[in-house]
Amino acid sequence: MKVVLAYSGGLDTSVCVRILQEKYGYDVVTVTVDVGIDKKEIEEAEAKARTLGVVEHYTIDAREEFVRDYIFRAIKANANYEGYPLSTALARPLIAKKIVEIAEKKGAEALAHGSTGKGNDQFRFEAVFRTLVPEKKIIAPVRELNLTREESIAYARKHDIPVAAKKDKPWSIDENLWGRSIEGGELENPASKPSDEIFEWTRVKRKETEYLDIYFEEGVPQKLNGKRFAPVELIMEANKIAGEHGIGKIDMIEDRIVGFKARENYECPAASVLIEAHRALEALTLTRQELRFKAGVEQNWSELVYHGLWNEPLRFALDAFTDTTNSRVTGNVRLRLENKSFAVVSRSSPYSLYSLEAVSFEDKSMNQREVEGILKYHSYQPGRYYAVKKL
Amino acid sequence: MKVVLAYSGGLDTSVCVRILQEKYGYDVVTVTVDVGIDKKEIEEAEAKARTLGVVEHYTIDAREEFVRDYIFRAIKANANYEGYPLSTALARPLIAKKIVEIAEKKGAEALAHGSTGKGNDQFRFEAVFRTLVPEKKIIAPVRELNLTREESIAYARKHDIPVAAKKDKPWSIDENLWGRSIEGGELENPASKPSDEIFEWTRVKRKETEYLDIYFEEGVPQKLNGKRFAPVELIMEANKIAGEHGIGKIDMIEDRIVGFKARENYECPAASVLIEAHRALEALTLTRQELRFKAGVEQNWSELVYHGLWNEPLRFALDAFTDTTNSRVTGNVRLRLENKSFAVVSRSSPYSLYSLEAVSFEDKSMNQREVEGILKYHSYQPGRYYAVKKL
Amino acid sequence: MKVVLAYSGGLDTSVCVRILQEKYGYDVVTVTVDVGIDKKEIEEAEAKARTLGVVEHYTIDAREEFVRDYIFRAIKANANYEGYPLSTALARPLIAKKIVEIAEKKGAEALAHGSTGKGNDQFRFEAVFRTLVPEKKIIAPVRELNLTREESIAYARKHDIPVAAKKDKPWSIDENLWGRSIEGGELENPASKPSDEIFEWTRVKRKETEYLDIYFEEGVPQKLNGKRFAPVELIMEANKIAGEHGIGKIDMIEDRIVGFKARENYECPAASVLIEAHRALEALTLTRQELRFKAGVEQNWSELVYHGLWNEPLRFALDAFTDTTNSRVTGNVRLRLENKSFAVVSRSSPYSLYSLEAVSFEDKSMNQREVEGILKYHSYQPGRYYAVKKL
Amino acid sequence: MKVVLAYSGGLDTSVCVRILQEKYGYDVVTVTVDVGIDKKEIEEAEAKARTLGVVEHYTIDAREEFVRDYIFRAIKANANYEGYPLSTALARPLIAKKIVEIAEKKGAEALAHGSTGKGNDQFRFEAVFRTLVPEKKIIAPVRELNLTREESIAYARKHDIPVAAKKDKPWSIDENLWGRSIEGGELENPASKPSDEIFEWTRVKRKETEYLDIYFEEGVPQKLNGKRFAPVELIMEANKIAGEHGIGKIDMIEDRIVGFKARENYECPAASVLIEAHRALEALTLTRQELRFKAGVEQNWSELVYHGLWNEPLRFALDAFTDTTNSRVTGNVRLRLENKSFAVVSRSSPYSLYSLEAVSFEDKSMNQREVEGILKYHSYQPGRYYAVKKL
Repeated sequence: MKVVLAYSGGLDTSVCVRILQEKYGYDVVTVTVDVGIDKKEIEEAEAKARTLGVVEHYTIDAREEFVRDYIFRAIKANANYEGYPLSTALARPLIAKKIVEIAEKKGAEALAHGSTGKGNDQFRFEAVFRTLVPEKKIIAPVRELNLTREESIAYARKHDIPVAAKKDKPWSIDENLWGRSIEGGELENPASKPSDEIFEWTRVKRKETEYLDIYFEEGVPQKLNGKRFAPVELIMEANKIAGEHGIGKIDMIEDRIVGFKARENYECPAASVLIEAHRALEALTLTRQELRFKAGVEQNWSELVYHGLWNEPLRFALDAFTDTTNSRVTGNVRLRLENKSFAVVSRSSPYSLYSLEAVSFEDKSMNQREVEGILKYHSYQPGRYYAVKKL
Repeated sequence: MKVVLAYSGGLDTSVCVRILQEKYGYDVVTVTVDVGIDKKEIEEAEAKARTLGVVEHYTIDAREEFVRDYIFRAIKANANYEGYPLSTALARPLIAKKIVEIAEKKGAEALAHGSTGKGNDQFRFEAVFRTLVPEKKIIAPVRELNLTREESIAYARKHDIPVAAKKDKPWSIDENLWGRSIEGGELENPASKPSDEIFEWTRVKRKETEYLDIYFEEGVPQKLNGKRFAPVELIMEANKIAGEHGIGKIDMIEDRIVGFKARENYECPAASVLIEAHRALEALTLTRQELRFKAGVEQNWSELVYHGLWNEPLRFALDAFTDTTNSRVTGNVRLRLENKSFAVVSRSSPYSLYSLEAVSFEDKSMNQREVEGILKYHSYQPGRYYAVKKL
Repeated sequence: MKVVLAYSGGLDTSVCVRILQEKYGYDVVTVTVDVGIDKKEIEEAEAKARTLGVVEHYTIDAREEFVRDYIFRAIKANANYEGYPLSTALARPLIAKKIVEIAEKKGAEALAHGSTGKGNDQFRFEAVFRTLVPEKKIIAPVRELNLTREESIAYARKHDIPVAAKKDKPWSIDENLWGRSIEGGELENPASKPSDEIFEWTRVKRKETEYLDIYFEEGVPQKLNGKRFAPVELIMEANKIAGEHGIGKIDMIEDRIVGFKARENYECPAASVLIEAHRALEALTLTRQELRFKAGVEQNWSELVYHGLWNEPLRFALDAFTDTTNSRVTGNVRLRLENKSFAVVSRSSPYSLYSLEAVSFEDKSMNQREVEGILKYHSYQPGRYYAVKKL
Repeated sequence: MKVVLAYSGGLDTSVCVRILQEKYGYDVVTVTVDVGIDKKEIEEAEAKARTLGVVEHYTIDAREEFVRDYIFRAIKANANYEGYPLSTALARPLIAKKIVEIAEKKGAEALAHGSTGKGNDQFRFEAVFRTLVPEKKIIAPVRELNLTREESIAYARKHDIPVAAKKDKPWSIDENLWGRSIEGGELENPASKPSDEIFEWTRVKRKETEYLDIYFEEGVPQKLNGKRFAPVELIMEANKIAGEHGIGKIDMIEDRIVGFKARENYECPAASVLIEAHRALEALTLTRQELRFKAGVEQNWSELVYHGLWNEPLRFALDAFTDTTNSRVTGNVRLRLENKSFAVVSRSSPYSLYSLEAVSFEDKSMNQREVEGILKYHSYQPGRYYAVKKL
């Protein structure tokens, strides 16, 4: 009887392997899905899995798929959940889908994940599991045994599972190509300023002002500084450039799925600059009607994805909306990166709706009197309101 | 026969005085409304008005009213029109209201303003004029004579109106307590990087990292760094602190009222930090349902005000919504100001909805299994969708 | 040790009394809250409660409060959840609040309700209980013992609880002043036409065409056919008139709180005509900006109330919005009631924004050429779009 | 020098022919676009055009295109502007497009229409003209000469244009396949009940109760009572059946494009039943997330079309959204037509999301206790709010 476990090599998922074997009596198949994590970590996960006696271990490189089908969608949707560009949230449905694929291939009876019962990730895993393979059992050992972090460590020690000494770094990390999240310990307190040492991707290495050209085709970034990159490489390069300028730190209060407010810290250098540049190009090429309505599309898209509802059919319809508008979001945006901050300084597009003649103070192609009719009726209804209010 | 003219002392409105006298045959009453402009400019305006032979000139200090009834509302509404915190747009309805008051007091037949027919300000003036005193005539000399900037200058020269030599500074400025806007010339081009010399409020004078505590009561900023300020002084102090850190530059593409896309540059130091801090405090104290819906309220409020529809009754209803939610937006937000950028680093409130126990990995007051029911039904409908889709 | 139970006198809540006594060992206090139910039912409930050996029974007449603080709010918000004007959903929070009041007065340890685990009412009870008295225990015996209808009946028989012979009427009813809901059995099937016998409030007794004048003050109905009514009497009279014309049947598919789609039948005569008339008066008195935005307010208000989140602070803010707009919703609406249907045939208000001169083909107070400027810029951005698309 | 005029054969457009010839000196090409008008009217228009000495007259049968590309889109979008299913508004962009096609084919310099300056149709014509052929001149003779109805009649009499004696019918009519609109005279008054004689399509001819099955494929009606119809015939048949039951009268207050409130009367039998049936099928097949968001899509789509902005790119993106959701809106809806009213009585679909087991009181496949977790967190944030509010 097999279970397929989403395996990171960390404490929680390692404890899960042992619990699944001992408490639940399963043969455990572990799967590490690479959505842009450290190569060393991937190797360590594999070695650790073997040590723990899994019957099989898979490492799946899903980076290309992650960028093409998830990150590029997030850029086109200007992903933003209360200020968060959706790094972890974006990767979970893909990881879950890969787990499902292995489970079907191996004829596993159950799917497992190491998430706790307080967080968001359990929703993101299980929404995919329940939707794609509702007939399979789902096991969440940490939640089912109601383990605290302390208890997980104790369990690990007792069962010869290596525990990295983390006394000095009492926070937990999740990383993928689209961002890095840091949580736990004192970071949870909304009133405490996070210590600098928690940040790794946004340490300033470039101090001089630098310009970065980002070229988009149909809403998708294709070139950086004039050079075309493959999808994964483009995101990595954007992370590197922006991160070395100290750009992409996010410190926020977030409403978790069950309703808890949590203080979160993220590093999202690529997400920060790519989405802002994309927005600037949309401002040039989309009509205000499109921009106005798309704001609501973006809010809903981001909420769905944050909540793990990647497979909700509303998401497909929102993407159809976004793809239609973004067919003209082609052009170049130049950013100035400087002193941990950045700004759009110029943008251009063959589909630009801007017209110099229209706005110039020196141009006479428009007779200014033409607008008089607009002015007369612009406030017609408020005017009626004031008229009747006096009665 | 009297006309009351909104008078800034600049080229356009000075030309208007003369046109109103000569072409329209009016006795001109000029009014300069101080919403936070330079004292010297006010004095010069007064002197210039006298030189031009106006029958009366008024200077009205509306700064306190501007902050209390307009800026504080903008903060509570997190004012944001496509990225613009509404500086000029926010002051126009107040200026227009003061013009109306003088016109009624003096029994003037007409109201006048110096706006061109290509911009937004004509809408903002006239929406108020037409709503509050629909029986009065409105005169917009620059628009009615379809004058270009060049032609205005020529007219001024011909009529002995002093023209500041601006060959080297071919842009126009509008300033008030809530921001400074710079437009014209090469700045209009979306693809051209603005020269540094156009900025005055955001030149870096403080290079060291600094923390700024902003204390809000019911959504309104009351203290900076623990010190209580009167409304006008608070905004001035916030402009000074943030501006000297180089914070508050905005470079954007904006959809003007008639539909033209325009490239705009603003300096809004106080607006930038106060609104961001306010947002952070709302994230801590409002429920996600409130935050989610308020995003739409803010978008609509900002559009109304941008369009000059300050008197549209929808605005009153949106303010009622905002005031209700903001009755709990009380507390302190700490910002780090550093290198032309800033970030919220901590926030606290007696009405904080955050709960440490809820999110802690070490707390056992919540049995993690409790969420199982939520998980089962979280993706119920997408699950049904996948089930029937297979048919 | 006391528990306070929301008691209707029906099968489920009667079974609950016995279970609370025997399985949980409580002294049971029963409370019947009158929100517009049959007097005979109230008396029967009281008698039955005594028979079941409760330690105390309360009957609370909450009809006036229900109309003033709940129904009138629903009218102003044009309550509509997917087509349902919120009858049962609207009363539950008030019933729950009364239960809480008795529980506090009697020092009860626990609160109980008879809802099953499949429906909406459990959410509506418990959202209020958990919000107002989070320290009190909540007991839902039917759900906790996972009883089916069949099992409840068996339990009742075994414990000498009188069961009305309902073999021929296999549906369940919930009634209050604002509507009557009928569910269960074959009614659940979206494809089956409901039998006429399930309807009681909408049997046609008046066959002649009749006109009904409804007069509103600030959004609240005050008079019917020119006669002023007290709140409870007004709703009863509107139910009678509209119901006797066969008006107010609703047959719909509804998304329940947990996500199940359910087929529901309602009879809401008063709600149907009062809300439609209110809408018609708003169309006359509110600006299109208000109407447009209020549609979203109404959708959100209705969702919150349907979900039992009467105490969510967003609801208060939405009500503040609604109250502000409705301060001008004063006037008369005339309906024609005829043949099971009705239509608005005329409406008038001192705050009407309608202007005959504006629309008349014969009036010359508007020079038609004035609109030319509007026309030129009305489609300016789509025009730019077509221009650049060709490139 | 040629002008192409949208020609209905009515008073206004006949007057336009003569004005275009005499005042503007044009060779006039008239075009009557058949979007579902009376054959006799079309022939009369042609004859009248010849009498007036036009250089060429075209009659274009655009009915199939109207149904496929406009009406079916309106059904999928549940078209509804403040209660109006968009009949005239929907046809104008198609008529305008046909005018443009003829103008390009004939090398005409100008385009003309007979709309006044007070209504909506000028916007709908000109938005298309200005967008598709911005280089062509637009002439609107009635507006440009600021003619009242009275003056048009006088002009007609003077220029030997036949005027139908309409003293007894002082209203104007516009008809197409999707509806009939009646306006003018006493009908304008919001407080006056319209006389029955203005209605033609909704005179009751069938008094017995009748059932109507409407079968949709991907949101588009394909069969009536089991019989497949071609698009034009389906709409005609639906108009006939529903109209003969007296269904489809609409009496409303509408906010016109320039901001005037107008009282409007429509007859839209097919639109009424087809859209209501479509809605009912969506309620069965779409997730609540889709339904909720689509409500906003529909409101925006309807506003765009009402405002004549058929070519606004936002419309294309909204359609992409709608098409995606409607790919599953396949199935049958049964209506009961009775006494001038109708109601959905059953609906079924292979993509139904309804599940009998989920809602049945007798089913045990769901353990009712499963929902306890949902209940605990359902009102978590309002609970926190009450807790901190007490402080």
